[in-house]
Amino acid sequence: MTKISLTAARDLAVRVLLASGVSEPNAEPVARGLVAAEADGLSSHGLLRLPAYADQALVGKVDGLATAVVERTATGTLRIDAKDGFAFPAIDLAVEEGAALAEQAGIAGVAIHKSHHAGVLGRHVEAAAQRGLVALAFTNSRSAIAPWGGKVPLFGTNPIAFAAPRRDRPPLVVDLSVSKVARGRVMVAHARGEPIPGDWALDAEGRPTTDAAAALAGTMLPFGDAKGAALALVVEILAAALTGSAFGFETSSMFDAEGAPPRLGQLFVFVAPRRLAGEGFADRLEMLISAVLAQPGTRLPGQRRLESRTRAEAEGIDIPPDLRADLERRAGLR
Amino acid sequence: MTKISLTAARDLAVRVLLASGVSEPNAEPVARGLVAAEADGLSSHGLLRLPAYADQALVGKVDGLATAVVERTATGTLRIDAKDGFAFPAIDLAVEEGAALAEQAGIAGVAIHKSHHAGVLGRHVEAAAQRGLVALAFTNSRSAIAPWGGKVPLFGTNPIAFAAPRRDRPPLVVDLSVSKVARGRVMVAHARGEPIPGDWALDAEGRPTTDAAAALAGTMLPFGDAKGAALALVVEILAAALTGSAFGFETSSMFDAEGAPPRLGQLFVFVAPRRLAGEGFADRLEMLISAVLAQPGTRLPGQRRLESRTRAEAEGIDIPPDLRADLERRAGLR
Repeated sequence: MTKISLTAARDLAVRVLLASGVSEPNAEPVARGLVAAEADGLSSHGLLRLPAYADQALVGKVDGLATAVVERTATGTLRIDAKDGFAFPAIDLAVEEGAALAEQAGIAGVAIHKSHHAGVLGRHVEAAAQRGLVALAFTNSRSAIAPWGGKVPLFGTNPIAFAAPRRDRPPLVVDLSVSKVARGRVMVAHARGEPIPGDWALDAEGRPTTDAAAALAGTMLPFGDAKGAALALVVEILAAALTGSAFGFETSSMFDAEGAPPRLGQLFVFVAPRRLAGEGFADRLEMLISAVLAQPGTRLPGQRRLESRTRAEAEGIDIPPDLRADLERRAGLR
Repeated sequence: MTKISLTAARDLAVRVLLASGVSEPNAEPVARGLVAAEADGLSSHGLLRLPAYADQALVGKVDGLATAVVERTATGTLRIDAKDGFAFPAIDLAVEEGAALAEQAGIAGVAIHKSHHAGVLGRHVEAAAQRGLVALAFTNSRSAIAPWGGKVPLFGTNPIAFAAPRRDRPPLVVDLSVSKVARGRVMVAHARGEPIPGDWALDAEGRPTTDAAAALAGTMLPFGDAKGAALALVVEILAAALTGSAFGFETSSMFDAEGAPPRLGQLFVFVAPRRLAGEGFADRLEMLISAVLAQPGTRLPGQRRLESRTRAEAEGIDIPPDLRADLERRAGLR
């Protein structure tokens, strides 16, 4: 592993994207998003995605010059066409305009279509919570999970993210994929040649497997069995059907430059707490959190990410030397 | 078991409630809700609840004469004070007014506070989907699930419900509690003197148990381990903190007439699909559902409920003779 500061990592990522024909207004949020994932210890959504992003921009699978367009479709709803560009700039727009709308309307729904990989979904709801809003987000992704009782992947690992603002603290963030583990962790195991636990995935014949390659050819298991599979269906409906986007079984891979633009979808719901809770939301949330933490052995969701972030801000992040060399080559630095 | 038609069951339930001092406008929706649960095969949320409801009305733990009050707090949000009355009439109001608001605003958020037991949450989102809306609902309930890593119940079994309208078919409904199984099933096992599977609950010392009584004194396990526990926290925030309601660890039991009004909360989000998806939501949903059902061994969530409902409409429902006798006595019919 090689150590790099967050600033240097962002700068490197921007250069790679610019060298791949991505506009500066698009390169900035993509670089920020990927490096934020690294800082939070979520390397499966970090810089290892960048070579594929860059290749996709080079061949036009993602339009690096796209400018997302917002349409106000009713007093409380926005529809964003990401124009086959990266998801990050479209999502930044969704958070900015959606947050302003929620302040005014009490609740706002924002649907993004013709979109791309959302990265760490929790980061986006966290940004909304930093503006004082409670936020929910859903995104779909390429088929990885079979419907309950079936063997062929149909739904993505389809994360659900939630954030709530806290007084004088970073927001509370819950971010969970409906697969037992994120598919990215199987990809990391595969890249490292390591086995995976036997309850993460089934192979193509529907048998449990510890082989990462067999798992990638098969189907991820949902967390919580049938209930998790039902949630995968709900997220597919919310993130794809309700945004006018491609289903997981219609989309192309996020990991190579083959095929058509992925046209994934993201759905956000932003709520101004005082409109629904009356006064006192912040105090009540702290009371609930105190009751959780009063029990020995408990911790809040998202704490590991915050600890990793603090460390990364002080010490930088570790990336594989091969990846760094690849990125530096792409950036024209070697 | 004794057989009773749905109409006769509703009539009996209304009489029990009226005899307990509940107003007719409140007795009707409560009776309809409990009998609808029976029809859907969910007897843990059915007529077995009625004796406790009636006792609560008699002592004023629930106000049988309450009239819920709606306040429009912003262009997209409604706040409903259930006035310590039953949840069913307040929720009917939430669906009716919330659906109208969502048609207009694109999305509506409705928070109910000073509320009571929501019954089968899926029925309420189904009612919204019958009006053409996509709906999400959350409610909290009395502490039954410990935070992850802890041993003392803090969160309710906190169901999440989702519904989407289908063309020429009943809505698709997903309704799942975040406990591995609904606590009502443990209560049913307890009432019947039956054991429970060893992975449903922990006893008061945090050990797995097959004894229903020990489970009721301990903590229910969330589905999907830590992820399910995180969802329980999210629902507690959405249904209680965000509605201005009591937390699961502050509320009184729904099963007896002791203590103060429970003051639980419900949160609904209603969305007009065309505002977010553009045209074509109905077709796209059918395409997704077809892809699910094309795989052998799969079925849609909620199908068992619909099958049970069809049977109940033709043949009536079975209720325990003791329960029927109790209800008839309360109704002054014997």
